[in-house]
Amino acid sequence: MIVDCAHYKDGKRQHEGQLSLDQAAAFAGHGGDEFVWIGLHEPQPEVLGELQALFGLHELAVEDAGFAHQRPKIEDYDENYFIVLRTAHYHEQEETVHFGEIHVFIGTGYVISVRHGPGSELSSARSRLESRPDLLELGAASALWAILDKVVDDYLPVVAGIEDDIEEVEEDVFNDDRPAPTQRIYHLKREVVEFHRAAWPLLSPLEALEAGAYAQVPEELRRYFRDVHDHARRVDEQVNSQRELLTSVLEANLALVSVKQNEVVKKISAWAAVIAVPTFIASVYGMNFEHMPELDGRWGYPMVLGVMTICVAGLVTFFRRVRWL
Amino acid sequence: MIVDCAHYKDGKRQHEGQLSLDQAAAFAGHGGDEFVWIGLHEPQPEVLGELQALFGLHELAVEDAGFAHQRPKIEDYDENYFIVLRTAHYHEQEETVHFGEIHVFIGTGYVISVRHGPGSELSSARSRLESRPDLLELGAASALWAILDKVVDDYLPVVAGIEDDIEEVEEDVFNDDRPAPTQRIYHLKREVVEFHRAAWPLLSPLEALEAGAYAQVPEELRRYFRDVHDHARRVDEQVNSQRELLTSVLEANLALVSVKQNEVVKKISAWAAVIAVPTFIASVYGMNFEHMPELDGRWGYPMVLGVMTICVAGLVTFFRRVRWL
Amino acid sequence: MIVDCAHYKDGKRQHEGQLSLDQAAAFAGHGGDEFVWIGLHEPQPEVLGELQALFGLHELAVEDAGFAHQRPKIEDYDENYFIVLRTAHYHEQEETVHFGEIHVFIGTGYVISVRHGPGSELSSARSRLESRPDLLELGAASALWAILDKVVDDYLPVVAGIEDDIEEVEEDVFNDDRPAPTQRIYHLKREVVEFHRAAWPLLSPLEALEAGAYAQVPEELRRYFRDVHDHARRVDEQVNSQRELLTSVLEANLALVSVKQNEVVKKISAWAAVIAVPTFIASVYGMNFEHMPELDGRWGYPMVLGVMTICVAGLVTFFRRVRWL
Amino acid sequence: MIVDCAHYKDGKRQHEGQLSLDQAAAFAGHGGDEFVWIGLHEPQPEVLGELQALFGLHELAVEDAGFAHQRPKIEDYDENYFIVLRTAHYHEQEETVHFGEIHVFIGTGYVISVRHGPGSELSSARSRLESRPDLLELGAASALWAILDKVVDDYLPVVAGIEDDIEEVEEDVFNDDRPAPTQRIYHLKREVVEFHRAAWPLLSPLEALEAGAYAQVPEELRRYFRDVHDHARRVDEQVNSQRELLTSVLEANLALVSVKQNEVVKKISAWAAVIAVPTFIASVYGMNFEHMPELDGRWGYPMVLGVMTICVAGLVTFFRRVRWL
Amino acid sequence: MIVDCAHYKDGKRQHEGQLSLDQAAAFAGHGGDEFVWIGLHEPQPEVLGELQALFGLHELAVEDAGFAHQRPKIEDYDENYFIVLRTAHYHEQEETVHFGEIHVFIGTGYVISVRHGPGSELSSARSRLESRPDLLELGAASALWAILDKVVDDYLPVVAGIEDDIEEVEEDVFNDDRPAPTQRIYHLKREVVEFHRAAWPLLSPLEALEAGAYAQVPEELRRYFRDVHDHARRVDEQVNSQRELLTSVLEANLALVSVKQNEVVKKISAWAAVIAVPTFIASVYGMNFEHMPELDGRWGYPMVLGVMTICVAGLVTFFRRVRWL
Repeated sequence: MIVDCAHYKDGKRQHEGQLSLDQAAAFAGHGGDEFVWIGLHEPQPEVLGELQALFGLHELAVEDAGFAHQRPKIEDYDENYFIVLRTAHYHEQEETVHFGEIHVFIGTGYVISVRHGPGSELSSARSRLESRPDLLELGAASALWAILDKVVDDYLPVVAGIEDDIEEVEEDVFNDDRPAPTQRIYHLKREVVEFHRAAWPLLSPLEALEAGAYAQVPEELRRYFRDVHDHARRVDEQVNSQRELLTSVLEANLALVSVKQNEVVKKISAWAAVIAVPTFIASVYGMNFEHMPELDGRWGYPMVLGVMTICVAGLVTFFRRVRWL
Repeated sequence: MIVDCAHYKDGKRQHEGQLSLDQAAAFAGHGGDEFVWIGLHEPQPEVLGELQALFGLHELAVEDAGFAHQRPKIEDYDENYFIVLRTAHYHEQEETVHFGEIHVFIGTGYVISVRHGPGSELSSARSRLESRPDLLELGAASALWAILDKVVDDYLPVVAGIEDDIEEVEEDVFNDDRPAPTQRIYHLKREVVEFHRAAWPLLSPLEALEAGAYAQVPEELRRYFRDVHDHARRVDEQVNSQRELLTSVLEANLALVSVKQNEVVKKISAWAAVIAVPTFIASVYGMNFEHMPELDGRWGYPMVLGVMTICVAGLVTFFRRVRWL
Repeated sequence: MIVDCAHYKDGKRQHEGQLSLDQAAAFAGHGGDEFVWIGLHEPQPEVLGELQALFGLHELAVEDAGFAHQRPKIEDYDENYFIVLRTAHYHEQEETVHFGEIHVFIGTGYVISVRHGPGSELSSARSRLESRPDLLELGAASALWAILDKVVDDYLPVVAGIEDDIEEVEEDVFNDDRPAPTQRIYHLKREVVEFHRAAWPLLSPLEALEAGAYAQVPEELRRYFRDVHDHARRVDEQVNSQRELLTSVLEANLALVSVKQNEVVKKISAWAAVIAVPTFIASVYGMNFEHMPELDGRWGYPMVLGVMTICVAGLVTFFRRVRWL
Repeated sequence: MIVDCAHYKDGKRQHEGQLSLDQAAAFAGHGGDEFVWIGLHEPQPEVLGELQALFGLHELAVEDAGFAHQRPKIEDYDENYFIVLRTAHYHEQEETVHFGEIHVFIGTGYVISVRHGPGSELSSARSRLESRPDLLELGAASALWAILDKVVDDYLPVVAGIEDDIEEVEEDVFNDDRPAPTQRIYHLKREVVEFHRAAWPLLSPLEALEAGAYAQVPEELRRYFRDVHDHARRVDEQVNSQRELLTSVLEANLALVSVKQNEVVKKISAWAAVIAVPTFIASVYGMNFEHMPELDGRWGYPMVLGVMTICVAGLVTFFRRVRWL
Repeated sequence: MIVDCAHYKDGKRQHEGQLSLDQAAAFAGHGGDEFVWIGLHEPQPEVLGELQALFGLHELAVEDAGFAHQRPKIEDYDENYFIVLRTAHYHEQEETVHFGEIHVFIGTGYVISVRHGPGSELSSARSRLESRPDLLELGAASALWAILDKVVDDYLPVVAGIEDDIEEVEEDVFNDDRPAPTQRIYHLKREVVEFHRAAWPLLSPLEALEAGAYAQVPEELRRYFRDVHDHARRVDEQVNSQRELLTSVLEANLALVSVKQNEVVKKISAWAAVIAVPTFIASVYGMNFEHMPELDGRWGYPMVLGVMTICVAGLVTFFRRVRWL
């Protein structure tokens, strides 16, 4: 699906509606800092084929763009670049990170963005860029910046959401009355590992962009790429901390499961002792000796009952004091 | 065994059947972008000896090619290169990765591929290459690409198969009714570690190929090697995530074994308490006191039975409520 | 809030009170080694806007300076630098590290420091610098040194505080009478991980400062930056040791929880045995055989009681000796 | 002890018996590609002193060569090199790696090998080299290759032996009827760590040899050193996998110890229940009530015995079904 | 305290007693390869101040030298270098590593060593150097070598002492009769981590010394620094192995604690079963049925006692055979 297709020149969008792909290709050939930005969402193979013909895209890049599950990267094809980004969205209820992908072709005079899955919508990135004529004037690379900035900014709520869940999990772990959240900890660990795999490979291409490895990126824009890089590194550092914390919380959880088990064993044993003592006393007076003076007296029975009660009370008090009950 | 032996020129296979090795060597000497591709499967030492003589292969490389269990590598012998690849195939039922090996000699005008074990068959790689005259024209390096691409693409189902098994294992771990899958987790960990050892050493030679470290690889082909490199890195990153996840799942499993043990201890203790109380009551009325008023009455026995039943019912209800039963 | 705003020249503060921002900007334009140092604390956006206009600060840097939660970094904007530092303060009672931030703009003739949160106050850094005319003479970079030195020196008590708590935790872990401090260990681990994330990213910009990557830093000052770098590395190495130790202490804690549990099980079982033996004896003499010689004798009952006592005493002694009681 | 001392020239050993050290030194001075190879085994200090004088060896190298426990390294002393290698031999029965050391001095015209401990004997390396005139012709460096090749090839059975033991240990761990092999796992871990420390430091000097860092190594030989390097890397990668696997197997072992404990607890509790129920029934009929109708009947006793048997059979069947017995 | 102060020239100490600081400073100015070596032990600030004035030491270095707790480093101050070393001494009884520090100022013509804490005494280093005129002739750097060599050589007994303790700990862990040495393992881990922090930062400055990064070090001495570097690396590699082993031993310890607990549970349960069976039998014959044929016979009681004994013997035998007792 073609989401939008616009021609930018002198820092301004040149028209309201969408251009056709042919028109776009014509404008792209003008050279200079004007460019077209074609936004696609899960395009049919034919559309990609048409674009390949119109813009001279490389077969391998088009093949990659055709379906998702690429790793984040920037590939240099002399006349243009092919960029793969993974978008992330945190589903609070499921505690799951949903991943999408954005593929970008960028060459002199054109930017083609291909969105897969439910990831970051780029319309906000586009409108933000349109409100910045100073950046728009710098050409196609500014659109790449707008997309990168959007994708990386969308990582922040993911990290924050995971952070919140880790805090909830910590409360569960250290609260005696709640069951051990082992499964939830593991699930979070899985999400964090997965998210790391989406965000981490982006760092080194972003560093290359910042360092000016790509000649087509004007110097004024590099600082903006550096800003994106900085955000991505912040995300990565926090994700690494979260991985380490989740490992620790899993171990702490294990220790506490053992402690809780110990509590249970203590409680059980205390009650066993409490009942074993009067049972023993009863068994003594169940013996059939001829001469057991206590048996004959009128008060023998109530006294033994009393002794039993006192034993039970004493034991309960004792175990309460040593915190076994 | 010689699987196939063909002469390629101007992007086309020059004949239908197999050439003899002597014919192949003669064609290999023509120079330019024409080349022969000799495909072997676990060849006799004599065949390797003959090839060594015909193509001037280095003694060390031929020695390596004679039997499997090499590590993945690219070795530069001035006049030619010797490449070792490890192929992987996932046996779903056994949850085991089967490894094979492919050794490749590549020089001006010839490619010799030697397959060991049950790995990736190369006939599909050959026919794929034959359908791409544009790449065939680029000479012998295109055959290397076809082989590498096949080998690395065959890694993907391995990773996917392991991923599926990890998900099954997770279900087992977090399902109370299934036994702890400790052995299966460990077995998967072993496979992942083994697979990592097969795939990981390939990364740096692939990077060298992509970066143009080998002069014989035409520039047009480098992008294709970059594509392979990219796939290999994706595999490697996923394998690393799997290693980390399997470590975590092993720990989560341990915590849950402890939790389950706790459940057992609770259940047992509850039943012990349930039976200890009426036993105690019975022992009381087994005492031989002269004066125990309850003993004489007609309703004593049924009443005590009733009290026992009430105690048991009360305890069972209580333990049900605190979730020990 | 503008905390202070002063003009330094020839190694001396030029006046007592605060300058206005306009005056400061005027002095900043003089060139040479004189400079103004404007100190802000959580400034209103308007103040930042005014400074942006007066000193030609870059939009991205001003945006960052507007609110906290940046990662430590040094960013080069040709005409000036933007530096982010994270301050740390250890709250002994809560065993929590409180983080603040200091952002610094430094250009020819001016230093603007922006403090966020309850971090290190910079007045002591300023007065320390004012007492060193030899450094003040070197220009604006000396103020950066004063700030960095203050921030990194304030890390030392944090590390020391955590070290103390680790030692307390160790005592708790290895003292049989105290409950396992699992939660506290985890909490300390969390603080250490967090603190690492604040201090570690500072190392590589400090190394760049020391190595002379920034032309505006006079050579005489580099040794002072090296000194700061050295302190930061010391902090980082100690923090890494603490992370490793806390991981180990968590594991040792787990082993000791198991050992303690074992103690409990032994103690319980010993008492169970102690009471089971006389109960068994009593049950023997509760049997209703016609011919049980012991039952008839006058001394049967006291003798059995004696035997029971002896058994109990023997068992208690035995279990004491094998350290089960 | 001087094991052998021979003069090599034009790819051939020049004589049958051993040369004296003086003769050797004289031949060493001839220059060109002829050289002497002196093989020592735990030499007296005087012998080393004599060699130092004859060949101008450096004091520090001679000091090192005097006794074992050096780390693997290649040291460049302008006129010659000093190489330390650690040999390894796997003692299958003890499951222990025995380490020895080989020190090599190599200069123009001479190679002196000093063997310590029960390591690889070099006579096979020497005879292998003597059967390769093409390599012998290349001078003293060929002897270094022969030694390195022997040492590294001797690592392979060590790795294979450890691999076998790991597989045995895995069987023990996952076999319910065998005791947990904790000590054996740990012991293997120790051996692997130790072996890693012997083999790993060799990698970077071997890489330097391969890359041609040492001018005295003729280019034709570099491929042979690359071959050795490749084998050493294979060993190192496998050792790393083994370290990781042994860590995992230790954790799996821990989980299984817990599972087995759980089995024990279940079995015990089941039997406790099985015996508690008839005991309870007996205690009921041990009560002394006047009016207990069952007591009077002639069939009361056999019926109760029957009920007890049925209860026991029912409980055993039940516990068998839930797999507690 | 000034420990010694001597003037060295032409490879010889020029006098017997101590020079005054002023004399030393005068000799230091002579240039060439003669130098003075001033040895201090926890000097008063005034002494340091005097030295600063006499030798033109840098304020930051003098500040550092004033008190301990620096990290190991080599700092280049153009006219001289400031070196910090951490000395280590293993207290066998306490199983504790005691750390000291040695700070060294080295410039043309002088070496000033400042010792803090109970570390390595340098008199032996000094006398060793004095016995080597060939090195003494090379100037002040030879004294630095003597100090470094002494400090690093003193690490070896520390590593060996820890190694011994690890072996003792292993014996304790795998010996069933000894209590689990959890605390000792942790304590050793702590010492190893601490020691690593003292020795590891030394490696990269030593590498710089070996590589000739400091022009003042004559080439002849570099080999001697390489020797020290080599020893330091050996120490570091062994320390790393020890860290890994201690982690593993802690885990093995945990598994064995669980195994031991299992043993206890088995033993307890076996005894419980042994006593439960005769108790049950007794309870049967305690039932009050009218018609229990066994009760009337003269041999009933002894027979039941016999049956009980047989049951107990049988159970004990059985549990012995399955190794629960």
